[in-house]
Amino acid sequence: MGSIVEYHLCAIDGGGTGCRVAIARADGTVVSRASGGPANFATDAARTVDVVRETVLAALRELGGEAPDPQRLIAHAGLAGIMNAQDARALAAQLPYARCGVSDDRLTSAIGVLGLRDGAVLAIGTGAFVAIKRGGDVRFLGGWGLHVGDQASGARLGRELLEHTLLAWDGLAPESGLTRAILARFDGAPVGIVAFAGAARPADYARLAPLVVDAAKAGDAVGRILMDRGAAYLNGALDFARLSGADIICLTGGLGPYYEAFLAATHRERIGRPEGSALDGALQLARRILEETETRA
Amino acid sequence: MGSIVEYHLCAIDGGGTGCRVAIARADGTVVSRASGGPANFATDAARTVDVVRETVLAALRELGGEAPDPQRLIAHAGLAGIMNAQDARALAAQLPYARCGVSDDRLTSAIGVLGLRDGAVLAIGTGAFVAIKRGGDVRFLGGWGLHVGDQASGARLGRELLEHTLLAWDGLAPESGLTRAILARFDGAPVGIVAFAGAARPADYARLAPLVVDAAKAGDAVGRILMDRGAAYLNGALDFARLSGADIICLTGGLGPYYEAFLAATHRERIGRPEGSALDGALQLARRILEETETRA
Repeated sequence: MGSIVEYHLCAIDGGGTGCRVAIARADGTVVSRASGGPANFATDAARTVDVVRETVLAALRELGGEAPDPQRLIAHAGLAGIMNAQDARALAAQLPYARCGVSDDRLTSAIGVLGLRDGAVLAIGTGAFVAIKRGGDVRFLGGWGLHVGDQASGARLGRELLEHTLLAWDGLAPESGLTRAILARFDGAPVGIVAFAGAARPADYARLAPLVVDAAKAGDAVGRILMDRGAAYLNGALDFARLSGADIICLTGGLGPYYEAFLAATHRERIGRPEGSALDGALQLARRILEETETRA
Repeated sequence: MGSIVEYHLCAIDGGGTGCRVAIARADGTVVSRASGGPANFATDAARTVDVVRETVLAALRELGGEAPDPQRLIAHAGLAGIMNAQDARALAAQLPYARCGVSDDRLTSAIGVLGLRDGAVLAIGTGAFVAIKRGGDVRFLGGWGLHVGDQASGARLGRELLEHTLLAWDGLAPESGLTRAILARFDGAPVGIVAFAGAARPADYARLAPLVVDAAKAGDAVGRILMDRGAAYLNGALDFARLSGADIICLTGGLGPYYEAFLAATHRERIGRPEGSALDGALQLARRILEETETRA
């Protein structure tokens, strides 16, 4: 391979809501950005390949005559729906860059959030997972989906709120302002809740999570039970991570920050601000590939 | 109306697996039986009406020249899929009997199981519900379906086994012979479990429940955790029922009997044998309608 300066870095972040690309010089300075359509590899692999290639070309066009050739890009793509090494190889083989790392977007997200710091990311939105990072090594816990995992997630909070409301209806759990509000929302009887649950997808349950958060903040007993249950899972994951020294904890996703008040004091002390995005994480990984390329050259 | 002896009793029990009918004399002596096709009112209301009418006619034909006219039947139908009073009225209006009570099959099942005794029925199969009977009054707890209820059910045991196995994989819960066996069943990695859970119906999860039961019996720590969790729900429901005196507890369904060893000692002492079936319960309810008819005559 040629000398270092001939290469540009290319960061790719893709998921169901769209694809984002940043082109940077070898020192990491971003010189161009572009965004494109949905790029979830599990939903539509062929379309994802097209979207990634086109979005990268769009970012290159922004550079006009100074644009490097795609074959002179060192890239990393972090995409939703990359389930295993086979998926990663299949995608990398169809991208025409000098080198291209591929991972799922949990990895790029965790690295973007923590930057060069070590510690843990609690990523909690509709779903949830925990990332534990030590140097270049990132380990993931959870993220197995609502049915058999995603403890502490918005979908789980919403589903457990409905379950608790029905237990309270039966007289088997305490009721509260929150369970009464939920019952009223479903016309005052379980049949509406049962019908909702029969058709609900994770995002439908997650739409109820802000009610749990708000009620817990206002001191509602059931709201606190449900947030405490989610926090017990997160505390367990953080205990398992055995953080020490300068390790930090970042709470991300729509619900992550709301768990801060429910974490154990020893964990709360480590909470720090997220540094960057999944696209920043992809850029960092592309740079690492460039460094490896230099070392070998 | 005419004199008592002109009436026959008609008991009807229907669900997804079929429809069963018994014709009895006014004193409760069964003189004829017949069975027919699926009769779940929620699945197909029109077909259920046809099946009930035809199965009753088949039972009457067995009696030859002695058969009473359908208009001389005092009937009770306990059918799966009767969700509310509106469903019950809609069905009753289409059945040509002198009188016809309609309920869901939980009621006929609870009354059949307990007979004239008071107490509680823990009905635990793929789904689960608790019935509490005092005289002619029966109250139900649970039965809200896997997603937001059915605690202690086979589906719930199976789903929680998979959740626990994934927690153990992550290092956040103890593993055991049971979780290792489940992991091996899914080729040794979470991806198979996640794929299964994405498509699993309650019956699919429930097929794993016997593994939990067997492991718990053999002393497996995780098997015991899961059975104890189901039993905690059942103990709570039985505490709520405030049984006293001669009240008994019946454990029914494919899994009910396996919870006996996990119930609190005060509840275990009350366990008695189920007396009859849902069809027996329907017959008892038809007889009650006849008594009311006599009283008013």
